[in-house]
Amino acid sequence: METIKPSQNSPIGIFDSGLGGLTVLKSLETILPNESFIYFGDTAHVPYGTKSAETVIRYSQHIMDFFQKHETKAVVIACNTASAVAFQHLQQLYNIPLFDVVTPSVEFAINHTKNKNIGVVGTFSTIYSNAYTKMFQKLGSGCNVKEIACPLFVPIIEEGWANTDIAENIAKTYLNEFQNINIDTLILGCTHYPIMVNTIQKVLSSQINLVYSGKTVGIKLKDYLKKQNYENSSLSSQPVKYFVTDFPQKFDELGSRFLGRQLNNVVHISII
Amino acid sequence: METIKPSQNSPIGIFDSGLGGLTVLKSLETILPNESFIYFGDTAHVPYGTKSAETVIRYSQHIMDFFQKHETKAVVIACNTASAVAFQHLQQLYNIPLFDVVTPSVEFAINHTKNKNIGVVGTFSTIYSNAYTKMFQKLGSGCNVKEIACPLFVPIIEEGWANTDIAENIAKTYLNEFQNINIDTLILGCTHYPIMVNTIQKVLSSQINLVYSGKTVGIKLKDYLKKQNYENSSLSSQPVKYFVTDFPQKFDELGSRFLGRQLNNVVHISII
Repeated sequence: METIKPSQNSPIGIFDSGLGGLTVLKSLETILPNESFIYFGDTAHVPYGTKSAETVIRYSQHIMDFFQKHETKAVVIACNTASAVAFQHLQQLYNIPLFDVVTPSVEFAINHTKNKNIGVVGTFSTIYSNAYTKMFQKLGSGCNVKEIACPLFVPIIEEGWANTDIAENIAKTYLNEFQNINIDTLILGCTHYPIMVNTIQKVLSSQINLVYSGKTVGIKLKDYLKKQNYENSSLSSQPVKYFVTDFPQKFDELGSRFLGRQLNNVVHISII
Repeated sequence: METIKPSQNSPIGIFDSGLGGLTVLKSLETILPNESFIYFGDTAHVPYGTKSAETVIRYSQHIMDFFQKHETKAVVIACNTASAVAFQHLQQLYNIPLFDVVTPSVEFAINHTKNKNIGVVGTFSTIYSNAYTKMFQKLGSGCNVKEIACPLFVPIIEEGWANTDIAENIAKTYLNEFQNINIDTLILGCTHYPIMVNTIQKVLSSQINLVYSGKTVGIKLKDYLKKQNYENSSLSSQPVKYFVTDFPQKFDELGSRFLGRQLNNVVHISII
């Protein structure tokens, strides 16, 4: 397939290991209503979190090649694992403006915290990688950062129990420690977590500001497009195109739960 | 490597997609104290439940080739997915006595139920495959079988929360339906589930008989070895040898939780 040179009216690519990144798509659609999007869910290889860095980089490169052939003017890595282990590598390899989900949330937290006590929640692999703490250190923030893994959040969300008493008790157990260290900001370091935000907010002090990667990367992307004069100039956006590498169990149910509407135009491809 | 012909003092092979099968090993050690065992955990490919039948069969064949080269006199497929999709195929291909975990539990339930109302719990993929219901039908049992998927049991066990109030509430939610249909037997159709048996028993009537695949396959294997005059004749068993294809996060913690002791002699191999 011939590579098409992207223009300002070209779509923005979003990729994730699975369907969780649809929560990021949802935020981007709100923040950038005139833009068009292509979503790529590598559902045949989900989860990335348990795979080696080399493997995640290889998968991510295949997806970037796909986007390059599909006229995308920018790409958002809506996956915490790929953001943590593949972002820098991909930035060097591809001449497409590239956005990860770790950096914008850390920048947003630094700019909005008052007491510099920050919490981060994520999957075991994201927290174990220390990607967020390292980014706070890299940006020289002087913040106290506490990361807590919440491995049961993803399965309870996928079961459809995000707003149950069981979810609330699980959240209490995980998040209890944050109460003692007086955080004023909590980064949701997993694309699934916005689905259970009501439960998370319920068990925390209402003073704590929740940071969503969909929102923070959306603001950063909007700012970038404006500065580069690269905003979509057409009057309306094109419908989202979805590409997935497998149709897992509960695909339709999960997809509509994350996106808030039915997924249409879903194409199954095998590029890897 | 040269194939060694197995003898009655050769070890028994046990394989699973991961570490859950260690609960089966634990039962087999109790039922067959004079036997020696080799455990194979395909931890690089766990879980099998989300993979296609072709892929699971291919992985299982590699493991059977491995066992064939390692002088095993019999093999137990301690994995519900591989038992459901690969057992018959492997039986045709290999000249090693082969035992799955579905058949013995169904036979045991048929022989012990009084009211012929049977429940089965398992992962989403096991229940979705209908492997248990099909086996009850194949054996012409006339039992009423109700299968319920309990997708949160595995993550809550892996989190170490099997005996918490949260686990009890999750179990109540899943198992409530069994109370209405008056089952007298419940098959635990997942090798993880014996870890939370106290919680499961707590929320069910104490009259309900829980069926563990480790126990049922152990009884069947013991019977087979006796009839074939193929029991280990040495006075003591050899230490278990463990082979895994990857060292996942929490490997040691999970392994010792499933086995009830530390895993020693673990060899990491890459055969696939």
